[in-house]
Formats: sequence, C-alpha cells, structure tokens
Amino acid sequence: MIKAAILGATGYAGIELTRILSAHPEVKLEILGSQSFDGQPISEVYGNFEHVLDMNCEKLDIDKAAQCDVAFTALPHGASKDVIPSLIEKGLKVIDLSGDFRYDDIKVYEKWYGQEHSAPELLKESVYGLPELYRDRIKDARLIGNPGCYTTCSILGAYPLLASGIAKSDNIIVDAKSGVTGAGRGLGLAYHFCECTENTKAYKVATHRHTSEIEQELSKAAGEEVIISFTPHLIPQKRGILSTIYINLNKKCETEELVELYKEFYKGEYFIRVKEAGKLPETKHVAGSNFVDIGMVVDTRLNRAVIVSAIDNIYKGAAGQAVQNMNIMFGLDEKTGIANAGFYL
Amino acid sequence: MIKAAILGATGYAGIELTRILSAHPEVKLEILGSQSFDGQPISEVYGNFEHVLDMNCEKLDIDKAAQCDVAFTALPHGASKDVIPSLIEKGLKVIDLSGDFRYDDIKVYEKWYGQEHSAPELLKESVYGLPELYRDRIKDARLIGNPGCYTTCSILGAYPLLASGIAKSDNIIVDAKSGVTGAGRGLGLAYHFCECTENTKAYKVATHRHTSEIEQELSKAAGEEVIISFTPHLIPQKRGILSTIYINLNKKCETEELVELYKEFYKGEYFIRVKEAGKLPETKHVAGSNFVDIGMVVDTRLNRAVIVSAIDNIYKGAAGQAVQNMNIMFGLDEKTGIANAGFYL
Amino acid sequence: MIKAAILGATGYAGIELTRILSAHPEVKLEILGSQSFDGQPISEVYGNFEHVLDMNCEKLDIDKAAQCDVAFTALPHGASKDVIPSLIEKGLKVIDLSGDFRYDDIKVYEKWYGQEHSAPELLKESVYGLPELYRDRIKDARLIGNPGCYTTCSILGAYPLLASGIAKSDNIIVDAKSGVTGAGRGLGLAYHFCECTENTKAYKVATHRHTSEIEQELSKAAGEEVIISFTPHLIPQKRGILSTIYINLNKKCETEELVELYKEFYKGEYFIRVKEAGKLPETKHVAGSNFVDIGMVVDTRLNRAVIVSAIDNIYKGAAGQAVQNMNIMFGLDEKTGIANAGFYL
Amino acid sequence: MIKAAILGATGYAGIELTRILSAHPEVKLEILGSQSFDGQPISEVYGNFEHVLDMNCEKLDIDKAAQCDVAFTALPHGASKDVIPSLIEKGLKVIDLSGDFRYDDIKVYEKWYGQEHSAPELLKESVYGLPELYRDRIKDARLIGNPGCYTTCSILGAYPLLASGIAKSDNIIVDAKSGVTGAGRGLGLAYHFCECTENTKAYKVATHRHTSEIEQELSKAAGEEVIISFTPHLIPQKRGILSTIYINLNKKCETEELVELYKEFYKGEYFIRVKEAGKLPETKHVAGSNFVDIGMVVDTRLNRAVIVSAIDNIYKGAAGQAVQNMNIMFGLDEKTGIANAGFYL
Repeated sequence: MIKAAILGATGYAGIELTRILSAHPEVKLEILGSQSFDGQPISEVYGNFEHVLDMNCEKLDIDKAAQCDVAFTALPHGASKDVIPSLIEKGLKVIDLSGDFRYDDIKVYEKWYGQEHSAPELLKESVYGLPELYRDRIKDARLIGNPGCYTTCSILGAYPLLASGIAKSDNIIVDAKSGVTGAGRGLGLAYHFCECTENTKAYKVATHRHTSEIEQELSKAAGEEVIISFTPHLIPQKRGILSTIYINLNKKCETEELVELYKEFYKGEYFIRVKEAGKLPETKHVAGSNFVDIGMVVDTRLNRAVIVSAIDNIYKGAAGQAVQNMNIMFGLDEKTGIANAGFYL
Repeated sequence: MIKAAILGATGYAGIELTRILSAHPEVKLEILGSQSFDGQPISEVYGNFEHVLDMNCEKLDIDKAAQCDVAFTALPHGASKDVIPSLIEKGLKVIDLSGDFRYDDIKVYEKWYGQEHSAPELLKESVYGLPELYRDRIKDARLIGNPGCYTTCSILGAYPLLASGIAKSDNIIVDAKSGVTGAGRGLGLAYHFCECTENTKAYKVATHRHTSEIEQELSKAAGEEVIISFTPHLIPQKRGILSTIYINLNKKCETEELVELYKEFYKGEYFIRVKEAGKLPETKHVAGSNFVDIGMVVDTRLNRAVIVSAIDNIYKGAAGQAVQNMNIMFGLDEKTGIANAGFYL
Repeated sequence: MIKAAILGATGYAGIELTRILSAHPEVKLEILGSQSFDGQPISEVYGNFEHVLDMNCEKLDIDKAAQCDVAFTALPHGASKDVIPSLIEKGLKVIDLSGDFRYDDIKVYEKWYGQEHSAPELLKESVYGLPELYRDRIKDARLIGNPGCYTTCSILGAYPLLASGIAKSDNIIVDAKSGVTGAGRGLGLAYHFCECTENTKAYKVATHRHTSEIEQELSKAAGEEVIISFTPHLIPQKRGILSTIYINLNKKCETEELVELYKEFYKGEYFIRVKEAGKLPETKHVAGSNFVDIGMVVDTRLNRAVIVSAIDNIYKGAAGQAVQNMNIMFGLDEKTGIANAGFYL
Repeated sequence: MIKAAILGATGYAGIELTRILSAHPEVKLEILGSQSFDGQPISEVYGNFEHVLDMNCEKLDIDKAAQCDVAFTALPHGASKDVIPSLIEKGLKVIDLSGDFRYDDIKVYEKWYGQEHSAPELLKESVYGLPELYRDRIKDARLIGNPGCYTTCSILGAYPLLASGIAKSDNIIVDAKSGVTGAGRGLGLAYHFCECTENTKAYKVATHRHTSEIEQELSKAAGEEVIISFTPHLIPQKRGILSTIYINLNKKCETEELVELYKEFYKGEYFIRVKEAGKLPETKHVAGSNFVDIGMVVDTRLNRAVIVSAIDNIYKGAAGQAVQNMNIMFGLDEKTGIANAGFYL
C-alpha cells in the first residue's frame, strides 16, 4: 500500500483528494494536513465522511510526513514551495497542486505570479503533470506540478490541432466557463449563494495566471510561440469547466476530418473522449469523473475550428489528475481508483 | 459474479443502479432493459458512461433475462408486476423498485394505488426491503419490495422512537422535502428548469401514496395503528430528501437521552449515522451515498421530539438500497459497492 | 413627497427597500445610510442601480436625518434601538425592521433575544406592523416594529383558523422553509454557494427567535396562550418562504369550508390570496411581490388542517411590508408602489 | 391610453410583456392571446397575476384585435407572419418578436430560416427595432422586427467599435451564454431541471440563426461584409445573457480610450451602461431590467479588444425592448414603464 499525506486536506481540492484516496485500493491515507482544523475529525469538517474515514486533521509535522511515500500539497501558492523541498529531501514523491512547479521558464512564473520563486532547482526537475502529454516523464519524477483546472481543459482541447500543422497560431481564443468550486472554500462576497446564483460574469480578462500555463504548452504543440486570449467566466454551478476554443485553419477541413485527427492523437487514452461530429460536450457528462470530453465543429464559412472541451474542475482539473499522476509514478494502472463514470445526477 | 439485469435502466433510479452496479466488484451487468432506447448504447443516452460501460439498451426478453441471477425492476407502478412473476418463475431473485410489493395488506395497496393487484400470491411472499429492519427476512427472499424514497427516510427517522414506548402515536407529523430527481425523467411543465428553480411547494397533501407505506411500518413499531400527516414538498435541488418529524413524548426526556436511544437502536448499522445533540443532518452530507443521517431535538417546552432525517432519494431511497438488498440476498458484505462517502461537492 | 431615510441600506432588506422606494411615486429618498460603504455611490455597491439612482451611501447624521419624514431602520438587532429614540425625538416616523419593537411583553423580548431592552418606553408605544391585523393602530403610530419574515408568513397563515374557534391550540406545528436572502449579506461558510446549492437543512430547531413572535400573535388569535413547534429550514433559492402549518380541528370540516372561512377573514385584503381547494401556494408565485398566498387541505382522516402559506421573505417579509406600513402611516393607498405582480421568472 | 394586444401571451416572452404592460401607465391591455389556454384566467396559468390582472386568455379574433392600437406578436416563427398582414391592414401598429421581420435581405432570412417568406412586401417596410441604432425610423414604423436576445446583446456590444474604424472586421468572435428562459416554456428533456442544473454546454455552433442577424448589423457598422463566429451556450440560470466579444484592433489602444469611445457613442442612452475600465458586467446587474451593461479590456499583448455585454434575455432581449419600441412609436418617453432597476436578488 502506498502511504499518502494530503497537505491542505480541507480545501475543496484537498477534500476531493481525500474522497478519492479514501476509496483507492492501493493507498493508505496517513495524514490529513490542515492548519485550520488541527485536531478535529475530518468528519466534523465534512459530514459526508462520518463512518467512512475515521481520521483527525493535523498540523504539518515533517518528521511524521517522512514516513509516507507520497505527499499531495494542496496549499496556497507560495506556501507549498516552502514545504516541498523538505518533503523531497525526506524521500517522498510530491504532487503539488499549486502553480509553483508548472513552469519550464522561471521568468514566466515570476512574471505572472508576481513573486520570486523560492526553489528554482526543484522547478528545473519538476515535471508538468499532464499524463496525456508527459506520461513517460511523470513515471520517474520526484516532483509533479499538477496542472490547473482551466489549463487541463484548454490544453487538452487545443493541443492536437496545434500539433497537427493545420492550425494558425495567431488568433487563438479560449473562452472558459467555470463552476464555483474553482474559487475554493475561502469566504468572499462574490461566492455568497445569493450573489452567485442566477449570475454569470467574466473576470481577470487578459490577466488570469492560467493564461501563461496554456501558452507554455500550446507553444510546444505548435513549435512556435503562441499567445492567446484567455477569458475565464464564473457560472452558477459547483463543478465543471467548459472551454470554447477558436482556432483558424490554414487549409480547408471538414468537422469529420478534425474528429479523426483528435481520435488518432488520443488513441488509447481512457480519460479522453472525443465526440463524434454532431455531438458536443456538456459539463454534466464529466462531473464527478476524470474524463475530458472534446467535441468540435469546423465553421467552413470561416475556415475556423470551434473546439469545446469539458472537465470536472476539481476532479480532472485537480484531485483526480493528481491521483492519475500518483498511479503512474508508482507503477499502477493509471485508472486505478478513478475509472468511474461521472455522477450525471 | 452475480449476473444482473436492470429493467427500466434509463430512468433516474435505473441509471443510478447502472452507475452503482457497473462499479460493483461482485456483479456483472448483463441486461440494460429499456423500451424507449432499445438498441442504443447506454453512453448515448447518458454521456457519462462513455468509455466506462459499453452496453446497448434492449427490450425485455424473458428468456435472455432467465440467464441472470437477479433482476432489478425499475418500471412504472403496475408495469413491473406483470413482468415479475415470469422472472421469479425463471428462478431469478427480483428487487422491485415500484410500489407493488411493499404492502402487508393487499387492501391498503389497492386503496392507495387505486387498482387491483395482479399478483396477490407474490405480494404475500415478498419482503419489505428495509435492511435495517428486515435484514433476516431479506436474506432468504426471492422478491423484494424496495421501499420508496420518502418512506425510507421517514420510517428510519421515526421507528426507534415509536418502538421505544415513550412516544405518543397520535399527532405524528412528517414534513418532507425532496429534490427533483424524485419525480423521474419524464417531461412535465412542473419539472422545467425555469419552473423549478427558485421555487418550493407542497403537493399531494394528505394523499401521497407513501403515506400508507410509512403508516404500515410505524404501526408495527408502535404496536398499534398509527395514522400520520405526511406532506411532501418539491425543492430546487437534484438529490436529497429531508424529513422533519414531530412526535409527542409521553414522559420528560432530554435530547441527549433520545440520541442515546437512537444510537442503541441502530448500533452496528453502517449506513445509519445518528448525530450528536446539537448537530443536525443536511442533505449535502448524504448526496451520492447510501447513508441515512438522523438528528433530533427535544422541545422541552412541549415535550415533543423533532427528528430530522436525510437521505439521497435516488441512492438510499432507491438504487443504493436495492443494491444493499442484493448484497444481503447473495450473502455478500452488505456494504459492497456502496460504502463510499457522498459527493459533498 | 415623503422624505425617507433608509438606515442600513446595503444589506439585503435595505437594498430591497431602496429598490422599492426609488420607484415609489410619493417618496423622495433622501438618505441611504451605510457604515461600511460611507461615501460610495449606491450603484457601486449594487450595480443594478446605475443610471437609476444617483446617491451616495453615508454614515448616520441625526441632524440630517431630522429633515426626513420617515426612517426605515434595517440595522442589526440592538443597533437600531440606540438610534431610534433620537429619530423619534426629531419627529420622524420610524419603521424598524429589527426584532426590537415587535413585542407586547418586554420579558418575552429579553428572554428570546438574551439582552436587556434599551428603550422600554418606546416598546410600549410601538405597533406591530402587520397591516392585515393592525391597520387601524398603524395609521397613527410613530414607531412600527416591522414583523419578521418567518412570522409574517406563519401568522397570516394560521391566524384565521385560530381566531375561528374551530382550532385546537395545542399541537400546532409550523414547518418553514426559507431562501438564503433571509440570512443577509454577511459572510459565512454556510452561505457559500458551494455549501448552499444542492443542500437543505433544518436549523435552530425549537430555539429560533421568531417562535416567540408567532406565539405572541397566535395567542391573541386564539384567546389563550399558544405554544408552537417552529422549525426553520434553509433551502437552495434566493427568495421565498413556505410555511406548512398543522392545526388540529375540534370539529369535522371540509377543505372547502376552511377556504371559505379564510376568504371571509381576509375579505378585501389585496395582498392576501386565498387559494381555492385543490390549489396550493408556490414561492415562485410571490417572489418579487408583497403577496401572501395561502392554501389548505383538511386531512379528514385526522381532522387536521394543513395550511400552506408563502411569501417573498425580503418583500412582504421585510421591505415591502415596511412600505405598506409607511403607506398606511402617511394616508396613502396601502398598495402604492407595491401593487405589482411577482417576477415569476 | 394605448390599447394593446399580446398574441402569444403565455410563453415566457409573452408573459414578461404581460407583466410589464399590466403596470405601464399609458397602456390598457385588451387582449391576452393564447391558443392553448383559451378561456382560462391568466392568473391560473401564471399564479403571480392573481389580484393583479383579471383577464382571460383568448383565441385570436382579428375583428376584436382591430380595436387595439398595437399588437405584440410573440408567436413561433412563421405563425406570426400569417397574422401580421391582417393586423396591419386593420390599422394596428405591430411589434413582432419572431425572426420574420428582422432582415434587410429576404434571401438571408430564407437561407437561415429554411423557408420562404410569406410577406415580402411587409418585410421591406418593417424596421429593425433596436432603438439605440434606429430610433428615428422606429418612430414612424407600422411594423417592427423586434431583435433577438443574443443579437441585442451582441450587436450593442460590438457596434461602436466596428463603427469606429479602429477594428479589424475579420476574426470577430462572439461567445455568448444564455439562461434557460431563452429556450421558452415548451417541454424538452434538455430543459428538465435535473438535466439543466449543474450543466453548461454549447449548442448550434456555427449554425444558430441569430448569427445572421448579428452579421447584418455589424456589417452596416463596419461598412463592409462581416462574418463572425457565434457560439451560444446554455447556462444554469433563468435570466441573462453574457456575450464575450473578441475583436482585433488595427492600432494600439488602451482600455480607457475604448471606454471613452463607447461612452461617446452611447451618450444620452439611458439603457446603455458603459462600465469604467476595471469593471465588468454581470448578468445579475441587468436581470429584470431593460439595461445593457458593456465593459471592455484591451489585451495590449495582442492588440485585441475583449468586450463583455450583458442583458436580461427576456427583458431587453425581448419584452422590455418591445415596450421601448412601443413607447417610441407612440411618442411617449422611451423609458415609460421600463426605467426600473433590475432585481439583483
């Protein structure tokens, strides 16, 4: 059994990790780290765990953590990067859910996060945890920068087309809609029920940090620097991200051809479901699961592809993908514990 | 492996059964019965199943069904009772989710359902599938009348107090609030999003069929005929029932004593979670799980107990409980495949 | 024109008052009082007011307020009672939305609010602002204790039956469900979108302060002391309260007779809509309006009336009723500015 | 008083018209036309109208309608165009909410609607009812093609920039999100509460009819043919459309300059609220009102404007705009009866 610690277990990503790992057949949860709820049973913080998981939250104790095989760090940006070097030194594998270890170029990180990076050496060795693109490198990694929610959805939606040579790399627009769990459990007037329900809005237009992560990966796909417009929106639901991606084509192409191209690119990927021409993703098909649904339409009037991708932001966009990475790092079947269908209802 | 057929797989209860059984370690799903979607892949009807379950829906074929060990019948009331005798005859165990086999007294059925019963002999042998009360009889049953959603929540909430001898059996009020999945997937203006959201209403006041089921069981608990007020309400959420139950006491009692009484009554029951004094159930703690949360307050001014019970109406109130019954009937650990924590998010 | 001040204009009740009064044909809004947003345009705090209302929020200045004719105090309990004597002294009429001036008996207030009353003399002269019951006294009042949301809904639902002589006054149960605006705009984990949506729960069972207000009025209706069970619930919608009220009858009665009794009692009341037998209220019919919908069913098996009443908690349950009181106090048609149909959508 | 008929009064646009007109100080509602509810009181179809509007629905009778001054036709596409010539002939002014009279070029209509136009002569004289652009022509029109919901939001959001000469007219993307009232009251599985809630999806990508309407107007703004990508999405709320519009610029420009350009363009327009740089629209600010909120960000990395516009789809996107047109046609102050702030809550 893999002994696992979750640091930051009581935020929304952390508790989804707890939910998945507490039912994972190859994992023994050893530590539920939480500053705020130190000493409290997890079932008092989240009533759904009563009778299921009999563990207390606890403050971080590096020596105790040292007995684990893997740590998931779901801490605020900056906080995790102080803890992670100690964990690595103790021999743990670390899967970090913050933005700290997702970048190839430290300058990009420092520009978009507005702070110096505290562990540049580790950043160099860390691997970007998108299994569908970097599975081989994840296998041997000690430290994973687990991708953001918007980025997982948007990169996987756009990558095959950009890698195909038939896309133009200017004029790429990613218009993304996210459920409210993406904002975390912290209090804020914007997340009050009466302010969120019956409301949709755009925010951080042209400045959201995930822009830089998407650009990093799409540039690699295209083999040239790609700069995109990325617009996040908040929509009145808990789970789910839908990215609508606009990419101009440099040659005529039918929807069916594009679907084939995607199917070929993602051949054998359990978690990627490419929709047939005429069908499009809905967030309700992926909620509660690790799936990425991708559909597309070629607007032949404009020679432009409209690609729609959907994930569950706290599952494939955070906790589920972290477990997928863990499975790969420990030589398990990648689907272990996360192969389930979504809730639908 | 237990070979299972679900008849009526594409309604909301049926699809939740499909979701649970497709991940059940001891079950092989053989048949997804559906009149309306005959020949279609289940993943076209419910997109969340793509890559997870590669089966087609099919019309009922009794000879094919005969090769199964168990059938779950999630058909409209009346429809299932024509099919069930054939299945029983073929040697299957049957777990029926309709109201047809839930009654001790055929007259009560015929009065509340307004129709003659077509299989009175089977009704006699059928067992009421509430494991926390009838586990021993369920073990050997061929035919289970799986309880309704309101009834599971209300009976389990009220039973211990009525069985204790400290309750008065007149003036029992059950005020229940249900999510919209309880109404099923059929179309109706009342279930249009714009009509349901931001709306709460009572319906079928004093006439809802589940009244008779609750009365049947509470009468047995009390050892005398119990007639209750039962008021169902529709609330704007998908999953969840909350029953608020008012019962007068025939002696002084503190909340803590009542909590103890419930804990004692349900000792060892994994799926029942009795809340400590000062805490109360919320539907979000049980959504997506087979748990029943029960909390209570004694109003000492009035010598009246207010008991609040919560379940997920399509899980413990339908599909999950059906699987719990199957587990018992086939000698498995009762929790197999349904031990998980709820979604919370 | 009536010159009006709203103290506490940026809470949910305050902003609904602002919305109603800014469109009222006989009112000139003079002051939008707010500690937190002093100096800010109201349209920055609530974007819906841009182009409609060009006023800044301001801290309380009694001398400035003295130039108004009426003040609406929508301040936290306790806060308003320090301000109100000064306003009264300056000659304003005051409509207070807190619980401070709703009680006939100061001891009841002090028991349920857990604090000494700071203006006992004013409490004596204040009038309970339920126009359908106390219109005549409201006309000449200087100070109105505007009723709470749960209480308006529950009292108006139960009063006619209790006043009729055919009700038993023991065993009265009020099971009420409220939208989240009832909790106000303050931050709290319980009101986070992800915690509220898809969730229903009971709270403050047997201890909610509105219990005492309902008992005060129903005791007057019945002509004897009435003690009730009152259970508030939080449901996932913004606006709306539905009270389901259970009252035993001391003689046989059909639903139609009860409907007649209610129609007679509320004859000529524009804001009370008694539903015909067979129809029941829904919160969506009253949202955004000052109406009270009341429907009923007599459960002839039990000789018990089940009465369902619905209001919009921040309209008839707070702001709209306050305006109704103002209209009466200033000799206007009671419906002025609040006669509109609800939103429905 | 203007005597008004609403044909198709019981759909969602029709009932919002009924709500607005029943409170309009210069209108007398004469006819509530409805095939389905002929003879029924409107308050039985929509309970919010009880005590407010005492009218019965009725089938269309052209002779009776002839006594009105204006007819609002909120009928399915095609249905209205048979009725409208008769109404015009009788001397009524007609405001048609279908797509039938919105086109300059009959061929565009016939291509996107897939049917022959039955009243080509009337189409020639009809005026596109977007007051902020065509006020002068609306004044004297007999027949108004009231714009669609997506189109009102998108055209008003993009027009000033396209008219300014600093926009490039290729690569225009309109990514729009709509609440469910936009789909109307008809039944459909996609609009079942349990299918809509917690779900977001794109639909009719590159093929939605409103594309042609937006292109028609933006081409006029740009002075050249404009072809756009338009992607509608369904989001889980009742009211509201948010359009996120991407337009490349042909010269460097700061957000503040663009804001100024919009403020200048819409100077004096009560219903247009251009947000200051740093602020963006939210659907909750416009719900229940006739306002159009427009905010923008220039992405200086890309020299691209991202414009966000928001309306209430059944108010400014249907019923409210129809009343605005009526006000203009009858010489009233354009704001009469529709000047109110949105609900916010």
